[in-house]
Amino acid sequence: MERKKFENSPCSIARSLDVLGDWWNPLILRECLYGNTRFDELQFWLDISRNILTRRLAVLVDAGLLDKVAYQTRPKRFEYLLTDKGHDACVVLLALMPFGERWYFKNGQHPIELRDRKTGALVTPEIIDSNTGKRLDSRDLIPCPGPGFRAPKAIMKRRFSEFYSETTK
Amino acid sequence: MERKKFENSPCSIARSLDVLGDWWNPLILRECLYGNTRFDELQFWLDISRNILTRRLAVLVDAGLLDKVAYQTRPKRFEYLLTDKGHDACVVLLALMPFGERWYFKNGQHPIELRDRKTGALVTPEIIDSNTGKRLDSRDLIPCPGPGFRAPKAIMKRRFSEFYSETTK
Repeated sequence: MERKKFENSPCSIARSLDVLGDWWNPLILRECLYGNTRFDELQFWLDISRNILTRRLAVLVDAGLLDKVAYQTRPKRFEYLLTDKGHDACVVLLALMPFGERWYFKNGQHPIELRDRKTGALVTPEIIDSNTGKRLDSRDLIPCPGPGFRAPKAIMKRRFSEFYSETTK
Repeated sequence: MERKKFENSPCSIARSLDVLGDWWNPLILRECLYGNTRFDELQFWLDISRNILTRRLAVLVDAGLLDKVAYQTRPKRFEYLLTDKGHDACVVLLALMPFGERWYFKNGQHPIELRDRKTGALVTPEIIDSNTGKRLDSRDLIPCPGPGFRAPKAIMKRRFSEFYSETTK
């Protein structure tokens, strides 16, 4: 069964998940961030079939997250390097770490850490509101239509009922 | 085909994706954040079959991200409310917004905005290093084994080759 595609969805979460939500893809990006960029390395560490890996890599190259680059000519062998977009996606994956550590690992028993390449200092991802610097808490937020949301007013009022009820109080 | 499970993986990204990476699940959470928490509302806005929605909701309740709560008794009807863990997961989904807006929408044409419930001010998710306050850039990072990573030294050196080559320089 072909899964539903979200590439035309009016939602930046849905469009991002079109590629990132395909469970193997984020793990392939993670592996590339670890520096395991060659086909055989990816296959070994992810314990994934060569067929599936080949297809997923093609999707990630096609989506502009990885560049396929030859590192050897005879025989020809490729590695997969993160593009700017791929690095942007990795940052979102790294933002998953505190969630995963909090809910799936005992305190202090997290398996992976991040260090600054230059200083060696520990790096801890955190999601904030860039306007206030405060940690983001979804309880404090109301989603509302942005400039690119195209729908009749009646639909928007129904979809974002909380926003419209707040603003018409 | 049953997909591979990551619940025992030594990686907080992989364990998080076990639930979050199942493309419908994040969109169900998004919808609950919009305030569309009842079965029929979810089904309408997501345009998902009742069967699939029923199964996904059971997974999300089982994973502790949603609470199933009766809002009416005759006939019995349920809504699905975000738990603390569900709100934590929503924050990570919201962290996808800048990525999606940057790569999948024209500048200024983002479909959704977030506003602070109390002040009405715009809220913009950003991923930073909580130790320095600087925007996270995966190019500057080296992943390395944390206290919970259990593997022989030889494996760790191979898996985190960049980290070990940097630290033994």
